[in-house]
Amino acid sequence: MDPVLRRGVARFTLSAARPIEPCHIVVHHGAVRDLPSLLDRYVAAPRYLVVADDTVAGLHGKQVVSVLRDSGHVASLLTFPPGETNKTATVWLGLVERIAALAPGRDAALLALGGGVTGDMAGFAAATYARGISFVQIPTTLLAMVDAAIGGKTAIDLAAGKNLAGCFHQPRLVLVDAAFLDSLPEHGLRDGLAEAVKHGAIADAAYLQDLEESAPAIFQREPAALHRLITGSIAVKTGIVQRDPMESGERALLNFGHTVSHGIELATGYAVPHGAAVAMGMVAEATAGELAGVTAAHTADRLRQTLATFGLPHSLPPGVDRDRVLAATRADKKARRGRVRYALIRAVGQAARTDDGSWTHPLSDDTVARALARMA
Amino acid sequence: MDPVLRRGVARFTLSAARPIEPCHIVVHHGAVRDLPSLLDRYVAAPRYLVVADDTVAGLHGKQVVSVLRDSGHVASLLTFPPGETNKTATVWLGLVERIAALAPGRDAALLALGGGVTGDMAGFAAATYARGISFVQIPTTLLAMVDAAIGGKTAIDLAAGKNLAGCFHQPRLVLVDAAFLDSLPEHGLRDGLAEAVKHGAIADAAYLQDLEESAPAIFQREPAALHRLITGSIAVKTGIVQRDPMESGERALLNFGHTVSHGIELATGYAVPHGAAVAMGMVAEATAGELAGVTAAHTADRLRQTLATFGLPHSLPPGVDRDRVLAATRADKKARRGRVRYALIRAVGQAARTDDGSWTHPLSDDTVARALARMA
Repeated sequence: MDPVLRRGVARFTLSAARPIEPCHIVVHHGAVRDLPSLLDRYVAAPRYLVVADDTVAGLHGKQVVSVLRDSGHVASLLTFPPGETNKTATVWLGLVERIAALAPGRDAALLALGGGVTGDMAGFAAATYARGISFVQIPTTLLAMVDAAIGGKTAIDLAAGKNLAGCFHQPRLVLVDAAFLDSLPEHGLRDGLAEAVKHGAIADAAYLQDLEESAPAIFQREPAALHRLITGSIAVKTGIVQRDPMESGERALLNFGHTVSHGIELATGYAVPHGAAVAMGMVAEATAGELAGVTAAHTADRLRQTLATFGLPHSLPPGVDRDRVLAATRADKKARRGRVRYALIRAVGQAARTDDGSWTHPLSDDTVARALARMA
Repeated sequence: MDPVLRRGVARFTLSAARPIEPCHIVVHHGAVRDLPSLLDRYVAAPRYLVVADDTVAGLHGKQVVSVLRDSGHVASLLTFPPGETNKTATVWLGLVERIAALAPGRDAALLALGGGVTGDMAGFAAATYARGISFVQIPTTLLAMVDAAIGGKTAIDLAAGKNLAGCFHQPRLVLVDAAFLDSLPEHGLRDGLAEAVKHGAIADAAYLQDLEESAPAIFQREPAALHRLITGSIAVKTGIVQRDPMESGERALLNFGHTVSHGIELATGYAVPHGAAVAMGMVAEATAGELAGVTAAHTADRLRQTLATFGLPHSLPPGVDRDRVLAATRADKKARRGRVRYALIRAVGQAARTDDGSWTHPLSDDTVARALARMA
């Protein structure tokens, strides 16, 4: 007999909608000087906790705290050692313990000032301290501006893999100030450019074309070129996240190139920079898509050309063990019922869905192995 | 000039609603035998991870895993050492690392089998592994059945205090089987009864009356009395959580008695059992409410009478340092702009709101100190 209809069974249903708290993204060269008024408008916390790694704290942290204090806000600076190797549970715990010791109240807000590591880990602290406090992203790298700071993903790395623990926690405000990029080295720009190319590849061929033509201006940090680069990427990403915030469908598209890139990073012990790994991953997944008949011919070649414009790699370095890359893809979070699934494109600027409407495609290990072999 | 209207400022707004995934609560004596069909109906995961402490694993864990495997489900049992002292970041991390090592996929579901500690910590693991997987609560204590397992709060303790890190993560299914209570010692029943009295005190005088009259039957574990006890409490709690899932208003009511009880627990190093602390806390906060003119006269006396029926304390033991209790209340998560706020009742069965509609009331340290002095 149906268990919930049996005599003596009491049944309750709790359908608790979370209130929608919009995430406001403001992009402007020099926007940091507007931080106090933007916080007053969108966050209005009685206390602000600025989190930065030691390097960014030295470059920008004191300035940001001063801007806040000079405008009458209560602000503290919390720092941690820089680098992806510190995106750990231990460092996260140290952060929340220090926040808890300050007892800032549940209406405090946390500001992440830095790159993707800072945003991910400080975001996880904001998501978990007192079951979630308000969160603001102030990205200082191009990667964080066009990708990591947008969309509400927070995470720390586990021994078993990157980003395996985390939460969805939307920032109330993302303040994007390209002036921070003046101090970013060229390889830092490339990490962000790989994600910008991805946004063009999955959704906007005209944007990809503009990116390619603007390459010299971008490397010269011309504000107008950076503004088009950043806003074009954010437009693609916010559109997708708006339609699928929890990655139950379309958002998986943003993983284009990333299943293989995570495999490359794991197989090389993270010796390959993230942007380079994503670049290789996109070429590999476009090639695999061509082999599977999903992706139009010459799509991988078209991506190779764009990536080359930015000095991003499009073949596998000799030292990369392809079998290890393939093995590492199997631990991907997109795996469903044991099968690794890939976000693929139909052509540059156009996502590929399966016939039954899925945003990810099951690819056999053999297909991916052949794609990797072509890139050697 | 308004920063978002300035020329050259690009602005995006992301209003990402989370899908509402209803939490189904099924209360039935012997419901565990229906677990497979309830999971198929409400969760439908390809893989189930059952988390229990070593004690509960020995009593019930293998049975639950067998029920699942015998019905063709994939199930694993993960255990951790019992007790509130293990509700830590270290034990949580060990749990998510073990889950990650199993690489169960993002569509796996985690089942918390046990009391409040297990539900809180396993729930935090479910909320954070792969940014959140499906979660099921199978409470085995009365406290968890009437309170901890209902409402989606998950947490671990920090050095700075209890439950200071956590998430809101609603279970898809809460399976409440009072047959588990047959092996629960009487002091375990009392911990749950204190919360049941709280639910009556804040919202349902008739329920409180029934509780009091049913005391002998409850202690004899008569199924009909336990069913009324459990469903009455769940009705109060789900009603409140439904209206305010994220504790931005009405949900604070569920903290009636808990600001002082947390203070008592902190001041005594958790030597006082949770139910006893909540009982004392309710009397203290009702008395403070009377002193502040918010709570009707004799309300605290009425609560004392009910608590006595269940063998719950209603005065402070001589060893409790009242100054330390008071100091500890100041770290309460409900503090706003530095002032400690209390959930209060107007009379038994009726919550008290402030004139401006708030669900919590600021009370001076002096008022609380006088209430504590009356209880010595």
